[in-house]
Amino acid sequence: MRHFDEELEELKSKLLEMSGLVESAISTSVTALTSLDRQLCERVFEYEDRINIMEIEIDDMATRLLALQQPMASDLRFLTSAIKINNDLERMGDLAVKIAKRALDLMDLPPVKPLVDIPEMARLAESMLHKCLDSFVRRDSALAREVLVSDDGVDDTRVEIFRVLIRAMQAEPANIPQYVDLMSVARSLERIADHATNIAEDVLFLTEGIDVRHHAETRKS
Amino acid sequence: MRHFDEELEELKSKLLEMSGLVESAISTSVTALTSLDRQLCERVFEYEDRINIMEIEIDDMATRLLALQQPMASDLRFLTSAIKINNDLERMGDLAVKIAKRALDLMDLPPVKPLVDIPEMARLAESMLHKCLDSFVRRDSALAREVLVSDDGVDDTRVEIFRVLIRAMQAEPANIPQYVDLMSVARSLERIADHATNIAEDVLFLTEGIDVRHHAETRKS
Repeated sequence: MRHFDEELEELKSKLLEMSGLVESAISTSVTALTSLDRQLCERVFEYEDRINIMEIEIDDMATRLLALQQPMASDLRFLTSAIKINNDLERMGDLAVKIAKRALDLMDLPPVKPLVDIPEMARLAESMLHKCLDSFVRRDSALAREVLVSDDGVDDTRVEIFRVLIRAMQAEPANIPQYVDLMSVARSLERIADHATNIAEDVLFLTEGIDVRHHAETRKS
Repeated sequence: MRHFDEELEELKSKLLEMSGLVESAISTSVTALTSLDRQLCERVFEYEDRINIMEIEIDDMATRLLALQQPMASDLRFLTSAIKINNDLERMGDLAVKIAKRALDLMDLPPVKPLVDIPEMARLAESMLHKCLDSFVRRDSALAREVLVSDDGVDDTRVEIFRVLIRAMQAEPANIPQYVDLMSVARSLERIADHATNIAEDVLFLTEGIDVRHHAETRKS
């Protein structure tokens, strides 16, 4: 049997691999949307299959490590965080699939112009995902804090996108179904950013022992 | 120090208490929406504060029990499931808050009639929440399976609500903002049902050792 620390390193690298898959799924889903490309949608569904398999592997591995020996307090928190982060990553993969399905839907409807700020919102969400995983494996709390700040920007962008889309619906009622699809995409990207924020909060709890969930900064852990 | 089994029982009862709060938050948010009642919205925000405090307590308790002694395999899975379920419950509370915020938004806009099937969808989602928690504490896999079946009904209802709302938007473009709010409510209820489904999947894994996540029924755990 290998050393516990080696197993922890392997768990970290698996989580990084999983987050790489999730990033690819998200960026592919948004490119599928902007280029109305069916093949790219299929690729997103393939990514999801791989993400789902990895989720189960990582969950099993983290649970096994919890059982293996009495982990120290810091390793224990690391392992329970890994279980939660794994869960968040898998749900981000589901959201990429939702975006790809909306892209497929749009391909069956008359085209509309404004993709508004959706690609920009996607880039922001992907960068949050990348940073929060980096902050986890490096235990870098400054990087985790950057993610929390970015989340406000994503929320503002989503509100602005909804404003533009409501105006477009009122101007072109015949195209409301397409604009509803685009709203759904903006909502999915917002949720991807929310999951990244959850992960960043877990990282801050892990690295600094302070609980920023629900602005509970004043609580002692 | 108390016996480990007693602590597990207390953890279960805390999770039941938390899910009771989440159920109250959801039903209050939907009543606030149908009766356009600001005070009920405030009550939802108060529920959320209590839910957030309980989430941290339960998370700390489960992690402490993981550390306390070498739990047996089945207790270990129970504790990691409790951590995940706690997370799902807290996010359901967030969704009740989202519904209450949409209700507040609607109070500032000209009234529209069709709340369509939203109260019915809410009742279905609440019943799923109740059943999945019961199935967890009683390790009742038949009940967990009922939740998985109900989720399809919720998804169908959401699709039908969107169809009705898109028609309403096309008929009354001036009221599109209100219908967008109602879509958001239907989406939140769908997500509440999704979280209940996630919990039911965890329960099936816990009780039967089979992994129904991602239709992985054929995999051996």
